[in-house]
Amino acid sequence: MSQPKKRKLEPGVDGEGGEGAQEENGGEQETVLPRSRKTKKERDQQYYECYSDVSVHEEMIADRVRTDAYRLAILRNWSALRGKTVLDVGAGTGILSIFCAQAGARRVYAVEASAIWQQAREVVRLNGLEDRVQVLHGPVETVELPEQVDVIVSEWMGYGLLHESMLSSVLQARTKWLKEGGLLLPASADLFVAPISDQMLELRLGFWSQVKQNYGVDMSCLEGFATRCLMGRSEIVVESLSGEDILARPQRFAQLDLARAGLEQELEAGVGGRFRFSCYGSAPMHGFAIWFQVTFPGGDSEKPLVLSTSPFHPVTHWKQALLYLNEPVHVEQDTDISGEITLLPSQVDHRHLRIQLRYKVGDQEEKTKDFAMEEYLTVSA
Amino acid sequence: MSQPKKRKLEPGVDGEGGEGAQEENGGEQETVLPRSRKTKKERDQQYYECYSDVSVHEEMIADRVRTDAYRLAILRNWSALRGKTVLDVGAGTGILSIFCAQAGARRVYAVEASAIWQQAREVVRLNGLEDRVQVLHGPVETVELPEQVDVIVSEWMGYGLLHESMLSSVLQARTKWLKEGGLLLPASADLFVAPISDQMLELRLGFWSQVKQNYGVDMSCLEGFATRCLMGRSEIVVESLSGEDILARPQRFAQLDLARAGLEQELEAGVGGRFRFSCYGSAPMHGFAIWFQVTFPGGDSEKPLVLSTSPFHPVTHWKQALLYLNEPVHVEQDTDISGEITLLPSQVDHRHLRIQLRYKVGDQEEKTKDFAMEEYLTVSA
Repeated sequence: MSQPKKRKLEPGVDGEGGEGAQEENGGEQETVLPRSRKTKKERDQQYYECYSDVSVHEEMIADRVRTDAYRLAILRNWSALRGKTVLDVGAGTGILSIFCAQAGARRVYAVEASAIWQQAREVVRLNGLEDRVQVLHGPVETVELPEQVDVIVSEWMGYGLLHESMLSSVLQARTKWLKEGGLLLPASADLFVAPISDQMLELRLGFWSQVKQNYGVDMSCLEGFATRCLMGRSEIVVESLSGEDILARPQRFAQLDLARAGLEQELEAGVGGRFRFSCYGSAPMHGFAIWFQVTFPGGDSEKPLVLSTSPFHPVTHWKQALLYLNEPVHVEQDTDISGEITLLPSQVDHRHLRIQLRYKVGDQEEKTKDFAMEEYLTVSA
Repeated sequence: MSQPKKRKLEPGVDGEGGEGAQEENGGEQETVLPRSRKTKKERDQQYYECYSDVSVHEEMIADRVRTDAYRLAILRNWSALRGKTVLDVGAGTGILSIFCAQAGARRVYAVEASAIWQQAREVVRLNGLEDRVQVLHGPVETVELPEQVDVIVSEWMGYGLLHESMLSSVLQARTKWLKEGGLLLPASADLFVAPISDQMLELRLGFWSQVKQNYGVDMSCLEGFATRCLMGRSEIVVESLSGEDILARPQRFAQLDLARAGLEQELEAGVGGRFRFSCYGSAPMHGFAIWFQVTFPGGDSEKPLVLSTSPFHPVTHWKQALLYLNEPVHVEQDTDISGEITLLPSQVDHRHLRIQLRYKVGDQEEKTKDFAMEEYLTVSA
């Protein structure tokens, strides 16, 4: 129990806990249906239930890189927040809403669709902020606010930035409730990609050749099987890398300005871009890592504040999203790697992230591989 | 990726990988049905598919406590194995079968129901043992051997010893294929229980009272919610404890002699026993831990060899099975704790472990709590 476990978008045993959750689903045992037969509403309900449990909130708040970045960004924007109205989209336990009140906001609407809203209300009360922070239960798409707001704050980022598709809720809230020229916290997001040599994966693939020296049985023939199992799948793997795993200078391949008109449609159609790398040196290349950063306006005379999930920065609970090729490819110094990457919602469940990859390594022919996010859910208070 | 992830009995994305697996299910996407509507055969098929992936085998073989214990036990029994016939129930990648051949067995039947049998066949070939180790694909209940065997070896233990219910397959094989007076490796299993104060759980429950000093927001009111989420459920939690988490001298509450007539029926009816503890000292008691050991005959003039999963011994991939009470109970030195514990198969899926607990702490009234294993699968090569 050293770490809260990763959450699944499909609520399992874990998703049922907490009194709030029971209230939400009326205490009835849900029947598991094939996903494709679920309505959007049913899938959304399942999604909200994932946030009814304590572990996901513990993981997010315990992520100091994340929570400190939001806290600092909110406090630095005190002059924009002071006496103003704020909408917190997906408020979770309400901590960001309280930061906004502490920064001087006159009125904060903390909107939360999952049963955790009840806990947020308790936290607001405990901190004596009932007069300034109003917790509203429901999806932000349908909730009614008494007024337009000056600021929208939201921690909407999922694995690979776009898993969970919560950004589209933020954008709808922006269109509906943010005053012209209002502030968005964060204001933009950038996506990065780099080719990788994953040292942990390398160890796991090499494991079978070590069995003989440990136990006197030659199991090296399982390396091919291990490669097919660990690399041959089309799932996006969420793991943390270190800087040494990166094989070339990372590149930004997409930039999302949250105030940009038409961004919602872009997300539906797929966001991404082309890349080209020149390798640092000789290594087995396993695929690509993608990660993101979000940027907050710096407030008065401050530099913008960046929350980064780069493998060169301290690890966050988002780690990195890894796209493995079907097998390792040997690269040398200056090997040319090029291609294109596109992030888009799954056709089966719009909350699930899909990634299309086209790539060419050295003289090899160009290949494509499509990926889907493992069931993991994360993040977003 | 520091650890292979825990496996689920329901095969998900992970369960589909590997060429063997694809051959097994004909490449078709399985429709998810409510578990209760699955036939026993369908559930068994799902269970076998969990072992088609490399990660579970990597985890088991990388568990040196486990694999070294089997290797040593088999080699020490060389005089019983030399020139004899062996049945390996659930052979997995075949490593235990090869240990038996290395110990001098004339013929080893490596029976494996999952698609991993193909890898076992490759391993046998690579080690030049095709003439002595025969890999047979199928459930041991239906496979046909050309002869009775002198020895049965099997690594059948699941979380909480009995999760997966693989022991009943071993017992059926014993009845059907083991010669009168034949050797069982291991020969017996013991179950232990102790009251615990789980330091990691304590930290997690206390997390919410620390938020104020980290971020300036008082979230201490969430401790009750966290307690309900983390302790209020009826799932068996698989985590590793250390000796300091144990609140009283552990007690053996069940002993399974694999040669005992009627053991299969005992398993169906439920195995367990009563316990009584006197606490070491003052602590918040969170519940009980159960763990097991299995014992191998020591061979010629050797002491029996024990594979232990005790929190006082080096950690194994089985860790311990934790049964949390609904909330912490304060105990003092000499507080009397008594009760009874019963392990039995789930009524919904016979492979899933269920535990019934009856307990009384100090002067509190006697209580009961029923537990079911999380979906996790493990172990058993």
